[in-house]
Amino acid sequence: MKKLINDPKAVVQETVQGFGLAHAGLVNVSEDPIYITRKDAPVAGKVGLVSGGGSGHEPLHAGYVGRGMLDAAVPGAVFTSPTPDQILPATLAVNSGAGVVHIVKNYTGDVLNFETAAELAEAEGVSVRTVLVNDDVAVEDSLYTAGRRGVGGTVLVEKIAGAAAERGDDLDAVAAVGERVNANVRTMGVALSACTVPHAGKPSFDLAEDEIEIGIGIHGEPGRHRIAMENADSITNRLLEPVLADLKIASGDKVLLFVNGMGGTPLSELYIVYRRAVQVLADAGATVERSLVGNYITALEMQGCSISVLRLDDELTELWDAPVHTAALRWGV
Amino acid sequence: MKKLINDPKAVVQETVQGFGLAHAGLVNVSEDPIYITRKDAPVAGKVGLVSGGGSGHEPLHAGYVGRGMLDAAVPGAVFTSPTPDQILPATLAVNSGAGVVHIVKNYTGDVLNFETAAELAEAEGVSVRTVLVNDDVAVEDSLYTAGRRGVGGTVLVEKIAGAAAERGDDLDAVAAVGERVNANVRTMGVALSACTVPHAGKPSFDLAEDEIEIGIGIHGEPGRHRIAMENADSITNRLLEPVLADLKIASGDKVLLFVNGMGGTPLSELYIVYRRAVQVLADAGATVERSLVGNYITALEMQGCSISVLRLDDELTELWDAPVHTAALRWGV
Repeated sequence: MKKLINDPKAVVQETVQGFGLAHAGLVNVSEDPIYITRKDAPVAGKVGLVSGGGSGHEPLHAGYVGRGMLDAAVPGAVFTSPTPDQILPATLAVNSGAGVVHIVKNYTGDVLNFETAAELAEAEGVSVRTVLVNDDVAVEDSLYTAGRRGVGGTVLVEKIAGAAAERGDDLDAVAAVGERVNANVRTMGVALSACTVPHAGKPSFDLAEDEIEIGIGIHGEPGRHRIAMENADSITNRLLEPVLADLKIASGDKVLLFVNGMGGTPLSELYIVYRRAVQVLADAGATVERSLVGNYITALEMQGCSISVLRLDDELTELWDAPVHTAALRWGV
Repeated sequence: MKKLINDPKAVVQETVQGFGLAHAGLVNVSEDPIYITRKDAPVAGKVGLVSGGGSGHEPLHAGYVGRGMLDAAVPGAVFTSPTPDQILPATLAVNSGAGVVHIVKNYTGDVLNFETAAELAEAEGVSVRTVLVNDDVAVEDSLYTAGRRGVGGTVLVEKIAGAAAERGDDLDAVAAVGERVNANVRTMGVALSACTVPHAGKPSFDLAEDEIEIGIGIHGEPGRHRIAMENADSITNRLLEPVLADLKIASGDKVLLFVNGMGGTPLSELYIVYRRAVQVLADAGATVERSLVGNYITALEMQGCSISVLRLDDELTELWDAPVHTAALRWGV
């Protein structure tokens, strides 16, 4: 294993230290317990947004802390849920009195620990709503989840719910917008290579030289099936088919198309996938109105990508376009 | 070789097609010959900025086309210089009458082809100045260059010269600012793994399981020496030592610190390197006033990073902070 790390046990701590130094104007970093908050949190009158999950998916979630997106991010160990004793103080730190929304990817550990933290926060008088993200069409149940996993759609839920909170929506309204995004987004991924968790020291799984895994999760957990390597257009077709079917994409639909790199794939390849995805959507009669292409929710150095399609309406489009100022996503400011 | 591509011969064309679709509001794409221009080029009265080079370094250069940065990008084949018959029309397309600056990384093919294109443009009555970027402290001459190679500093030259052009500086002034950035920036890189050029089909070089290459170039060309794998702090020390010595960094200096991923390295590891780099600079008495952390000038899926240090003054800081709106770098707008 060759990684630019010092001690596998210190990876998360040193990452957030570096992150805090690089973005000192944007965020505050708590090191014990570890969580990252927006510099000006709590923002008076605003609903607080907290997300988190295992580390190794950077820039998710710390990269999305800032104006118009998250108020706090809570990173666990690599590919391991954060604990309630991190989530609770992050929740309290961003509560201005308007309540807090937890955005949780549907993995058993995350769900459990955010639930516990929400109960503890409620006991301290903070109203908490939870938006569960479960956009992955690859599998119904998996090694890590009951029900669908939460993957690429999480980034879109965080951006759009964040914009709703920023414009002053109340607690129920922010949660409702987040749930509406989740209901209208589907994702499917592919892995060309495995990734290596630092404290494990060896790849999470093996793929043969000419083999890829369709329906991969963001921890390298198994997907639908392994197939022989195909070209980018064929892979794109395979990923989009179940996404469009599940979303019931119809002629006239307007969508946001999100091609996400898993961490180790060149940006050029993501644009090649994007190009084909636009064609497939056009064939289905849908128009790509907004797009996002890059490494936004990763699995360490895994090679591969995921494709997310979000059906847009005027309000979701307006909230997507709203100004955002975070380390990893920024426009309008 | 597993890559998300269709035909190795079509990689550049399909990448720019996808790029053009994803960023239709920002750029126009010419496919024959291939070059990318800012949507509103030529901008009346503004000096035009053109850069280019081999593909495989994305987001460089197309990702930097837009307001406050480049007017045109000219991608060659992967790791191969673009030709004068691409560079010339790109130059003419962005000339508003105020002249054009070519920003050229110091590689023999790039230098020659940009020189020819500049002569042809001059023959058509367009004034051209060339800013040669040669910030790599690793080697004096290499397989690809006479003199130092142009690497990470290129991104900083493009941003800062772009801001000077945007505020209305004339041709000589824009070129002078670009040269001032180049004179004040130094870079050194490391590779943990090789990358595979699509039409070659196999890795450009071999590194043993516990070996890294210090002083790597952005095409995987040899650096200073190979050493056994070390931890992130030691590697960071090794990269920064010649950078700081060559720049003669002294107590009280203000710098921009740029930790760049080579394409296949997780963002978390870049922040771990950044963390140590800040400590090393502090030990030298320098203050990090601005920073950039991420994949900005890559070598396909290579694992590794480069560290660039730019000595700032008030004007360079102001130009760095000026609004920029490109696919890969955006703030203030």
